[in-house]
Amino acid sequence: MLFFTQCFGAVLDLIHLRFQHYKAKRVFSAAGQLVCVVNPTHNLKYVSGRRAVAANAPEQGGCPQRHATHLPRPPRPHPRPPPRPHRPRPQGAPPCTCPLFSCAWEGRLEVVLPHLRQAHRVGVLQGAEIVFLATDVHLPAPADWITVHSCLGHHFLLVLRKQERHQGHPQFFATMMLIGTPSQADGFTYRLELSASHRRLKWEAAPRSVLEGVDAVITDGDCLVLSTPLAQLFADDGGLAIGIAITAAEACSSQAGM
Amino acid sequence: MLFFTQCFGAVLDLIHLRFQHYKAKRVFSAAGQLVCVVNPTHNLKYVSGRRAVAANAPEQGGCPQRHATHLPRPPRPHPRPPPRPHRPRPQGAPPCTCPLFSCAWEGRLEVVLPHLRQAHRVGVLQGAEIVFLATDVHLPAPADWITVHSCLGHHFLLVLRKQERHQGHPQFFATMMLIGTPSQADGFTYRLELSASHRRLKWEAAPRSVLEGVDAVITDGDCLVLSTPLAQLFADDGGLAIGIAITAAEACSSQAGM
Repeated sequence: MLFFTQCFGAVLDLIHLRFQHYKAKRVFSAAGQLVCVVNPTHNLKYVSGRRAVAANAPEQGGCPQRHATHLPRPPRPHPRPPPRPHRPRPQGAPPCTCPLFSCAWEGRLEVVLPHLRQAHRVGVLQGAEIVFLATDVHLPAPADWITVHSCLGHHFLLVLRKQERHQGHPQFFATMMLIGTPSQADGFTYRLELSASHRRLKWEAAPRSVLEGVDAVITDGDCLVLSTPLAQLFADDGGLAIGIAITAAEACSSQAGM
Repeated sequence: MLFFTQCFGAVLDLIHLRFQHYKAKRVFSAAGQLVCVVNPTHNLKYVSGRRAVAANAPEQGGCPQRHATHLPRPPRPHPRPPPRPHRPRPQGAPPCTCPLFSCAWEGRLEVVLPHLRQAHRVGVLQGAEIVFLATDVHLPAPADWITVHSCLGHHFLLVLRKQERHQGHPQFFATMMLIGTPSQADGFTYRLELSASHRRLKWEAAPRSVLEGVDAVITDGDCLVLSTPLAQLFADDGGLAIGIAITAAEACSSQAGM
């Protein structure tokens, strides 16, 4: 009986996944583009003091496999966390914080990717052009949707964050960060594109280094910002599809490790 | 002596204008594009009751001539106005409100353009591709920058509004509205584009009818939204250059009066 129940659950998951995949393909009709279904990572806890918790994996989220999907855990009531410091850290052997809002991990740049893969089960996608499909965007803030792209000889982190910068008015912030130094990040350009009937929104910029922190990028306004009504105009059945493209900046392509 | 002072003032104005024009051309390098320098219209007064004040012209702003520039009046202290109603009005011979935040005028659709030209000295530009250069974007909210474009057989109104939807956090909202009915507006597409070093932001949508009101468009999120930090990333010496393009939507071009 348990076996049949599990089978039924798996079939339901597959149907749900198939539907979401179809939606993303309908929105971005370019043939051959990968679609990554990304589930939210809720702010289940927040440790205000910075301490190394690299092996701790309390959150569930990310994109462990390209077409895997998970039901998000319901958000627990919690006190509002204090704001993170959002200025870039000193450059001399800098500690790097986890890009997830809910995680207090910090460590060296070289171990950010292992931390994301092991602690948050974030999968690494190959390809410079991908459709990022964030699910359940109607869930309350704060929440993160993240995925890692491996292309052009580097790893890039796409972060979509739902956050209330102004009380009672959640917004979405989308940015691409290089798992590398700021000077390496200057060698690339990324593009985010949302498309719905009669509407299109494109953002193009150089990625920021993951060393600078997501908070600094949001505070600087150096990202794609969507109000909740605008996100609803682009969303389809709780899913927000964002087309992503990464290219090497012309002047710097030779130094970018291509 | 007075004559020489006036001449000197005129020369300074011309130098300032030339500088702004050069900046806009540098940002948008496409040859042959018109540049419209648009000054802010401050919310000097607000009449909460709706009454016809068509002949009244207390505000100074708009783009009276293509390359004219004016010093904006300093904003006077005033109580925060009550929010305007922002739902579309009934379609049966609907009254149309003035798109300027500071003006309480209302009248029929056919007299919106004469009102804007006479009461607010808004000039009409010919051409489907124009660079809209809003000056003094650092001035406090609320403020409007507007201009009218005549192309494809219709008149389009570009509105850039600086407004505090959330206390203490002014934002910029840019939208294109057709001086026509909603069904006529569906026949067109407009594109707004901001560009600065390593950053580009594009918004493409169908214009909304001026009958629906600017407030409804902002509340629906159906416009380009810039936070103050993001606007600062694109601004250059207090000027915000927005490239504008209007096209007839493919399916409706035959009915759009081309």
